[in-house]
Amino acid sequence: MIQIPRGTQDILPKDTYKWQFIEARLHQIAQDYNYSEIRTPVFESTELFVRGVGGSTDIVNKEMYTFQDKGDRSMTLKPEGTAPVVRSYIENKMQHDVNQPVKVYYLAPMFRYERKQKGRYRQFVQFGIEAIGVEDPLIDVEVISMLMQIYKSFGLSNLKLYINSIGDQDSRSAYNEALVAHFKPSIGEFCSDCQSRIDTNPMRILDCKKDRDHPLVKQAPRIYDYLNEESKEYFEQVKRNLDALGIGYEIDYNLVRGLDYYTHTAFELMSDAEGFGAITTLCGGGRYNGLLELLDGPTETGIGFALSIERLIMALEAEGIEIPKPQGIDLYICTLDGASRTAASRLIHQLRAEGISSDMDYKNRKLKAQMKDADRKGAKHTIVIGEEERETNVAELKNMADGSTKQVKLDDIKALAELIEEVES
Amino acid sequence: MIQIPRGTQDILPKDTYKWQFIEARLHQIAQDYNYSEIRTPVFESTELFVRGVGGSTDIVNKEMYTFQDKGDRSMTLKPEGTAPVVRSYIENKMQHDVNQPVKVYYLAPMFRYERKQKGRYRQFVQFGIEAIGVEDPLIDVEVISMLMQIYKSFGLSNLKLYINSIGDQDSRSAYNEALVAHFKPSIGEFCSDCQSRIDTNPMRILDCKKDRDHPLVKQAPRIYDYLNEESKEYFEQVKRNLDALGIGYEIDYNLVRGLDYYTHTAFELMSDAEGFGAITTLCGGGRYNGLLELLDGPTETGIGFALSIERLIMALEAEGIEIPKPQGIDLYICTLDGASRTAASRLIHQLRAEGISSDMDYKNRKLKAQMKDADRKGAKHTIVIGEEERETNVAELKNMADGSTKQVKLDDIKALAELIEEVES
Repeated sequence: MIQIPRGTQDILPKDTYKWQFIEARLHQIAQDYNYSEIRTPVFESTELFVRGVGGSTDIVNKEMYTFQDKGDRSMTLKPEGTAPVVRSYIENKMQHDVNQPVKVYYLAPMFRYERKQKGRYRQFVQFGIEAIGVEDPLIDVEVISMLMQIYKSFGLSNLKLYINSIGDQDSRSAYNEALVAHFKPSIGEFCSDCQSRIDTNPMRILDCKKDRDHPLVKQAPRIYDYLNEESKEYFEQVKRNLDALGIGYEIDYNLVRGLDYYTHTAFELMSDAEGFGAITTLCGGGRYNGLLELLDGPTETGIGFALSIERLIMALEAEGIEIPKPQGIDLYICTLDGASRTAASRLIHQLRAEGISSDMDYKNRKLKAQMKDADRKGAKHTIVIGEEERETNVAELKNMADGSTKQVKLDDIKALAELIEEVES
Repeated sequence: MIQIPRGTQDILPKDTYKWQFIEARLHQIAQDYNYSEIRTPVFESTELFVRGVGGSTDIVNKEMYTFQDKGDRSMTLKPEGTAPVVRSYIENKMQHDVNQPVKVYYLAPMFRYERKQKGRYRQFVQFGIEAIGVEDPLIDVEVISMLMQIYKSFGLSNLKLYINSIGDQDSRSAYNEALVAHFKPSIGEFCSDCQSRIDTNPMRILDCKKDRDHPLVKQAPRIYDYLNEESKEYFEQVKRNLDALGIGYEIDYNLVRGLDYYTHTAFELMSDAEGFGAITTLCGGGRYNGLLELLDGPTETGIGFALSIERLIMALEAEGIEIPKPQGIDLYICTLDGASRTAASRLIHQLRAEGISSDMDYKNRKLKAQMKDADRKGAKHTIVIGEEERETNVAELKNMADGSTKQVKLDDIKALAELIEEVES
């Protein structure tokens, strides 16, 4: 038997309502914040991620689904959404769009070849936003405000927001030098990844999962002490404006993010809900001022975040929050004989065109089993059609909630549809 | 500069509303017909498509995006949606689900490495449905009814539905023998694909694009003459019930579909809208009674269709039908100084949480340019905040449609949100 690819999952009909509910909410909030959807292809040139995510990252080194296409070009299933959006921004010259800054969002599958573990899938869905074309502490605050609004709108409460500033390129260079001086003498005590990070991107030693308890990590210099005046002032304004909005946060000086292109504001939203066992990252993001130029684009700057729907669903489960189940169908038509099945088929064809969700039996069930089927499908109304109903064109519409019935004409579809809708609202 | 992969497209913010509108409609119609969404991974085992689509098809032979994953398993980006749904049905033993038949739909990107041509993309989005677990002419009619309802709901009128029956396996075998006898003596006059089709799947010679004008194709035996009694009766019932629903169709005896696993009912919806230039296929589908067993599943049967959103959009354009543009934002807040920007940031943060879509200036524009920005964003209301408004907490809410203004309190968010919503409805 052919099986689903390892590490991926089917979202089955019994569960898709959760995804639909969450996605509808995300589209709505994006609209409230005036972000427009952008869709980029599932795969991109491998070079985009090597350059845009960074050759020293686990994503690029270990986790990409890379293949040669039939034109022998190296392609990669996208492991993250920012580089593709920036590629599209550059290619479509969006710096000249009349609407500035360019505020976009995406909701799309991403692919990372990770070790199989609970709640981690090799294909997962990310929702993310990017605001490109402006460097303004207030847009950093808008991005964080939207992130918080998303999680709060679902009723989640065990949320902890951490922020930091990585400063501008100058601050970052000064800090990297200090880190090298700090770690270099003892780098032999660190994992092999960190031993190469010391040369490529020393800041990433700070969020290494293997070495996070090493005393030198805890004693490491703080980025804040290496921020220049401009970077400090930018960070202060972000904090002041978050305060003005009443958004609580903690500063985590070790928060430097896994990707190479971040500058200034970095943030992570964690959940300490008991259901998770340990504190868990829900969403991360930050400002990337070097990325567009790195990809041969204009000198524009951006900020964004990305979250995974799978992780959001886990957070809801960890806090015992249930997504409302979809309502049943409006109408189920039972039939007593073959000719009535044709009549029922026509009737639901006509009612569906009026927006009445409806169904009938396709398994040649007896009346009792049909009523059971109607019940399983959550039918709000039923009609039984037999010879008499066909001849008189009159039938009984039964309200399944209160058992009440009403005589209805089967050949006045508009009136029937209105009656069914009226009872519901 | 890194470019988008050849043959793929970005859906840019200015166009995504079309996709959102169409997709919302498709979800709605699926719900009216009581089909539930299913989501399968973007890639599957290559073997699934080799077996489930058929080794003699162009899709499998020429058009698949196939790659080895890091575990050295051969994977393929899905070129079509039926085989993955059937794989999921089998793997999740859906024949035992309480709701029968299993009625599902999918809306997902598909991938075919085709020659670049207008309106054809190597990544495209398909909407498709599958009804699995019942062989009943009425469910075939339901599937066709839904297909027609989709296109009619968008106002398309240049529609032509073609149907045919390929019969059951016995009928199909008898017909294939007749085709071999008919074509074999002159097969040298046909293209190289047809020369191999005569051995693997002679029916596919009938829909070869290269040889369709060959006189032997026009003189070929008709499938109808080889249908056994049961198959003829099934086809008659489908036609009778389509008649009962008032769904017009033509019979096309050469309609045998490109995929190997179809039996009984086959159908295609074409558009002869002038805008297309030539008659164009919008959607195809049919019954597949052998597919589940072919994939080591239970002896259940299915029927479905698939359509591409890209093609649907082309059909709308060909008939000059426009998708309604999204409305602008509810509110734009203009600011006169730095402190007012913080106040505006807080105000939109609070209003967005109440579902009021809003925005402000992030480019340090002067008031006049801010008003222009509000206009570009289609703002239905504006508020200007300066020192006075901050001190008094009172401002003027301007209705941009009629120019009328109202005094509002800036610290009563609920009242302000209600007022804005009220004016709109």
